[in-house]
Amino acid sequence: MGGDHAPGEIVAGALRAREELGVDILLVGDPQQIEAALPPKTNLGQVEIVTAQEAIAMDEEPLNAVRRKRKASINVAMDLVKQQKADAVFSAGHSGAAMASALLRLGRLPGIDRPAIGTVFPTIIAGKPVLVLDVGANVDCRPKFLEQFAVMGSAYSQYVLGTNEPKVGLLNIGEEESKGNDAAVRAHQMLRENSQINFIGNAEGRDVLSGRFDVIVCDGFVGNVLLKFAEAVGEVILQILREELPQGLHGQIGSALLKPNLKRIKQRMDHAEHGGALLLGVAGVCFIGHGSSQAPSIFNAIRMAKEAVDNQVIQRIQSQYILERESG
Amino acid sequence: MGGDHAPGEIVAGALRAREELGVDILLVGDPQQIEAALPPKTNLGQVEIVTAQEAIAMDEEPLNAVRRKRKASINVAMDLVKQQKADAVFSAGHSGAAMASALLRLGRLPGIDRPAIGTVFPTIIAGKPVLVLDVGANVDCRPKFLEQFAVMGSAYSQYVLGTNEPKVGLLNIGEEESKGNDAAVRAHQMLRENSQINFIGNAEGRDVLSGRFDVIVCDGFVGNVLLKFAEAVGEVILQILREELPQGLHGQIGSALLKPNLKRIKQRMDHAEHGGALLLGVAGVCFIGHGSSQAPSIFNAIRMAKEAVDNQVIQRIQSQYILERESG
Repeated sequence: MGGDHAPGEIVAGALRAREELGVDILLVGDPQQIEAALPPKTNLGQVEIVTAQEAIAMDEEPLNAVRRKRKASINVAMDLVKQQKADAVFSAGHSGAAMASALLRLGRLPGIDRPAIGTVFPTIIAGKPVLVLDVGANVDCRPKFLEQFAVMGSAYSQYVLGTNEPKVGLLNIGEEESKGNDAAVRAHQMLRENSQINFIGNAEGRDVLSGRFDVIVCDGFVGNVLLKFAEAVGEVILQILREELPQGLHGQIGSALLKPNLKRIKQRMDHAEHGGALLLGVAGVCFIGHGSSQAPSIFNAIRMAKEAVDNQVIQRIQSQYILERESG
Repeated sequence: MGGDHAPGEIVAGALRAREELGVDILLVGDPQQIEAALPPKTNLGQVEIVTAQEAIAMDEEPLNAVRRKRKASINVAMDLVKQQKADAVFSAGHSGAAMASALLRLGRLPGIDRPAIGTVFPTIIAGKPVLVLDVGANVDCRPKFLEQFAVMGSAYSQYVLGTNEPKVGLLNIGEEESKGNDAAVRAHQMLRENSQINFIGNAEGRDVLSGRFDVIVCDGFVGNVLLKFAEAVGEVILQILREELPQGLHGQIGSALLKPNLKRIKQRMDHAEHGGALLLGVAGVCFIGHGSSQAPSIFNAIRMAKEAVDNQVIQRIQSQYILERESG
């Protein structure tokens, strides 16, 4: 029920995922609206609709709304995961509400103080994304939280993105370990001493897209600014291209010839190709899409969710902390 | 003496500024190296070389180096400003050393707790840049510092960039005043209540390049990450264009036709066009260039420095604080 294009685009992306990935889909929300969004020839026997009479609006204070509207679609969906009737949840609605609902209904993984929102950025190396976390769940982060983000991010990078020994970086303002504020200096030391991860040092702003790092950890304030800037910068540059490329006669001919190539460039820069954000540190696989998500983003998020489930990411993260406690 | 291309490119940019802007140039450093970098026909009577036998290397700890090497070129240059033998200083060398030297030699302006490094980003609206500060001088910022950055940034935007009633934003993770960490919430309140500036609210990462804001204030940690990311993202996208545009026969022909337009796009995205960073809050006009600065960047920085001097930016900032004390 959430997002600018719900339920139409959500349903379309989910049906595509069912068809191409062979996953079962539970559509949670108002049955009338969902049925109206289904293509005319949909075999209703193949689509399960789970009724939720309420939904959380974008302008509601998340924690209150999640508590008050017990039967909101996000809560009902989380409960399906908790009851093991579903393996993963996706929402393009209020991301704060999705996070609050996940925390209240699923709870945190043992050993994790704060769940983080992770998102995948494309890098200069085609096919080699970087996972950045946290991008908005925690505005202030103790060094210990950053260390937990690194462990969770490594597991995700390895088992969902298929990275061998993910290289972890700490977002900072210089390469030297003495750089940054107190929290950054202490986090650097903790990351360096953690044997569960492959920490290769500080990552500066310029390194995010370099492909040198597979996982970059930061507090949710910096991460959120960076994510929103990155999303906008793609738009800005595409607009500059649209304005400047067709200038003049040569420009018009050249642009026409380049149409397919420009489309490929747009795809390479497009965030939607990478399936939105994921919530790491709660006891379930949760993906959060942009409010503006359309069918391709939904499809990609479900694809990533399937990878996370098939590769038992939650169990892998948990085992890191069980191992840690046994060896500690 | 500082930067990857010193003294050749520095000298070239400075000579161009002398010719096109009619400014007098003092070249500070090793006379032999500087003379060797001058074009053969330079009339030495028109170029003043000020001898400085030492220089601070990029890997030196800035505060120590500035204190120990009293005759380093950056110190000698700052002294020229202090002694009113020069109106402004530019360095492409160690930016931390330039900042330390400015603090020690020129001192802070009355009323300013912490100087900030500001830099101008291009926005989606051609010819309408946004000034972002701090981009690296202060990793932790009290709300009061952010308020001072806003006052200084407004004066710079108005009197150097020619903005009428500059719109000021606070970099944050949401539009609502309650968003962000404690420092951001308190800074929002202080900015809203400050009658010297035109504060229009929080700026999210996506707003930086939107052209809605003329000045955006943030702490030096976030600002530095953002600046370095922004610099790199331009490079990354140009590389993707270079890789993808010429693909296939149509691509090759189209790219050839678009060469002049692509050059214009590069210029519009290019940081160098905007003249590097400035140090706001010290008692003098100081510009800091990238280590990779070449003649066009040097020229642009000197152009901005001339604007700052001609429009008495330092005096304007000072008068804000004198007025404040008189009225408070």
